[in-house]
Amino acid sequence: MESAREEREEKETARLEAFSDGVFAIAITLLVLELKVPAGSASLGRTLASEWPSFAAYLTSFATIGIMWLNHHRLFTLIRRVDHWLLVLNGLLLLGVSVVPFPTELVAQYLGHPGEVTATAVYGGSFVFIALGFNGLWRYASSRDRHPPLLRVPHDAPEVLAIHDQYRVGPIAYLVAFVVAFWWPNVSIAMMLALAVFFLIPAKVKSAGS
Amino acid sequence: MESAREEREEKETARLEAFSDGVFAIAITLLVLELKVPAGSASLGRTLASEWPSFAAYLTSFATIGIMWLNHHRLFTLIRRVDHWLLVLNGLLLLGVSVVPFPTELVAQYLGHPGEVTATAVYGGSFVFIALGFNGLWRYASSRDRHPPLLRVPHDAPEVLAIHDQYRVGPIAYLVAFVVAFWWPNVSIAMMLALAVFFLIPAKVKSAGS
Amino acid sequence: MESAREEREEKETARLEAFSDGVFAIAITLLVLELKVPAGSASLGRTLASEWPSFAAYLTSFATIGIMWLNHHRLFTLIRRVDHWLLVLNGLLLLGVSVVPFPTELVAQYLGHPGEVTATAVYGGSFVFIALGFNGLWRYASSRDRHPPLLRVPHDAPEVLAIHDQYRVGPIAYLVAFVVAFWWPNVSIAMMLALAVFFLIPAKVKSAGS
Amino acid sequence: MESAREEREEKETARLEAFSDGVFAIAITLLVLELKVPAGSASLGRTLASEWPSFAAYLTSFATIGIMWLNHHRLFTLIRRVDHWLLVLNGLLLLGVSVVPFPTELVAQYLGHPGEVTATAVYGGSFVFIALGFNGLWRYASSRDRHPPLLRVPHDAPEVLAIHDQYRVGPIAYLVAFVVAFWWPNVSIAMMLALAVFFLIPAKVKSAGS
Repeated sequence: MESAREEREEKETARLEAFSDGVFAIAITLLVLELKVPAGSASLGRTLASEWPSFAAYLTSFATIGIMWLNHHRLFTLIRRVDHWLLVLNGLLLLGVSVVPFPTELVAQYLGHPGEVTATAVYGGSFVFIALGFNGLWRYASSRDRHPPLLRVPHDAPEVLAIHDQYRVGPIAYLVAFVVAFWWPNVSIAMMLALAVFFLIPAKVKSAGS
Repeated sequence: MESAREEREEKETARLEAFSDGVFAIAITLLVLELKVPAGSASLGRTLASEWPSFAAYLTSFATIGIMWLNHHRLFTLIRRVDHWLLVLNGLLLLGVSVVPFPTELVAQYLGHPGEVTATAVYGGSFVFIALGFNGLWRYASSRDRHPPLLRVPHDAPEVLAIHDQYRVGPIAYLVAFVVAFWWPNVSIAMMLALAVFFLIPAKVKSAGS
Repeated sequence: MESAREEREEKETARLEAFSDGVFAIAITLLVLELKVPAGSASLGRTLASEWPSFAAYLTSFATIGIMWLNHHRLFTLIRRVDHWLLVLNGLLLLGVSVVPFPTELVAQYLGHPGEVTATAVYGGSFVFIALGFNGLWRYASSRDRHPPLLRVPHDAPEVLAIHDQYRVGPIAYLVAFVVAFWWPNVSIAMMLALAVFFLIPAKVKSAGS
Repeated sequence: MESAREEREEKETARLEAFSDGVFAIAITLLVLELKVPAGSASLGRTLASEWPSFAAYLTSFATIGIMWLNHHRLFTLIRRVDHWLLVLNGLLLLGVSVVPFPTELVAQYLGHPGEVTATAVYGGSFVFIALGFNGLWRYASSRDRHPPLLRVPHDAPEVLAIHDQYRVGPIAYLVAFVVAFWWPNVSIAMMLALAVFFLIPAKVKSAGS
């Protein structure tokens, strides 16, 4: 009986991961629909060049969703079982991820035009939402109040604490980029791209632990 | 021989789940294509605010498909093997799920304009269809007439009966929301969002059994 | 060494199935993008009713891709390993499946208007192509010339022969529907929907063998 | 402890493959959105025939992404574990794959019109980028500097060396097609389609080793 439940739990966790991966993969691939082919342009090269905000927004969103997938992937190497509220929190996170193509297109269309502040703020705001979603998910999963625990490792294992540290950075950094959008939208986009690249550098615990 | 068949059955069930998850994940992520970027708006913030029905419809559909996925996921923790008609019933259910982006866009475009009654009724009607689809799938899978049984547990196990109880609510609740649409479309949409949130509260059997 | 190769083969087969399932799931869900929300219609109900060819084409394509998925799923319960040319043949089949949303939209837009013969012929032609693709895939996989064999069962096992029989029907039936399209496009579409429903009835070998 | 880490590694690799397969499957299926249904054409057959660049671009991109998937699939039969930078390199590769629908649509719209040189060059350039991505991924994974190694086999095993040879061809061939685009865009597209077909012929090591 005990082992049957464990097996069922592992299956549930695996299915949640697969579903989440599907949403990540679809959201990251749908971004391409935001790149619009200009209609009958006499000078296609120049027209494409003038569409640079589309490409900047595409790259930033692709890198950010990619990083988020990686993060999700890492959390779930530590999460052994899911309960109802973890499913709900994960759903909130996926809500944030799957909406990204919309603010991406907002930025692509409005950067450099009136409305760019609103567009960039919505874009940054959606990343703040996602960063908070990750924190909520992780804090819930790693809380000492979960009985039986959801993690494979103790709630105060070094890799758990390292993620705590790392996750403190995300929401604040995206919040700064969000605030900057109200004055310098271009700088805000550049900051978000830089953040994605920054998060690509592996955390200390990785290099020490592997 | 016996165990080879069992293994093949488990593989079939797993593949059905994976295919269904794919459809759920794609349908929930395609919803974002319904959010339209307004063309060259002078006051983007105000224009986005006036598009609130799009966001309300997006949220409602996202939450509803999310809940449905969760439901599907739970049913299949109890279903061990699939037969031909279960595949067909599951296909009908997926038909309902994958069509959701269309009525969502109907509501997004027509709420607050002439035609909102039709749009909301189509929207509610598609949820009634899905709720009936879930009932059909579950009643077929849990029927005592299946030999060999499709469930992992006896057809009168407490968790099976608990789902019976819970599933009586769905079609009726969505039917009420559907009927309300003919008089107050806004109220109908609010009811459907509330239903999704309501179904997020775990059933008693969950809290007792886990 | 031997068992390591077998394991790798099983992994390859599983990954091919997963990739194919992904394409099936995406193609079947993308069909919904063909359903267009009419712009600012005064009488939405009547406008939607006049769009019945869209709904007929949607249903027919959904049912047909669903059946195809089921077929694919069944073939692969018998296929144990894949080789290079099976991958290529499977790719041709997926080409046919993933293109279906295009002829579906052709039919949706042109049925009842000039051009309906071309639209329906393209639609029927794509199903002929897919039916031939299934035959090619299956004949290759089940040929006695494969060493080591690709099937889990002998090439003349009853379930293999039953599929041979069943697969003789598909291309001919779709060819008839294709030819009919040149005179009566509506009848051709109805035939294709009827074919999908017909293929839902399980083959004799299933009812006898399970 | 050791075996638990190995299991976790295998799980990570499997999840990376599944995510990558998702992106490949979605990108290959999204290509169909590039095929546009002509609006109210009096002579639909002739209109579709005049859209041949769309179909040529569709076929070329479908075949190319299909081949890339196959390649990816083969690399990962040799890769046992992934590390951080492999994830990043794989992400760059997926960036190239998921952007393909955009240059495909560029070619579909501009081939035969002013701008075709730019469109075809962007198309060929994206394939050069992907070919380089594959090389980067493979060279990193198979490098003798990885400790512990990422491959299942020694870094100088015959199948590894065979892939080295094969991968030298890709970037150069696509670079030639890219350069040709500046003079003869049609020839460049034909070359890229021919390349996809060429890569379908299995490498020597496959026929010898299996």
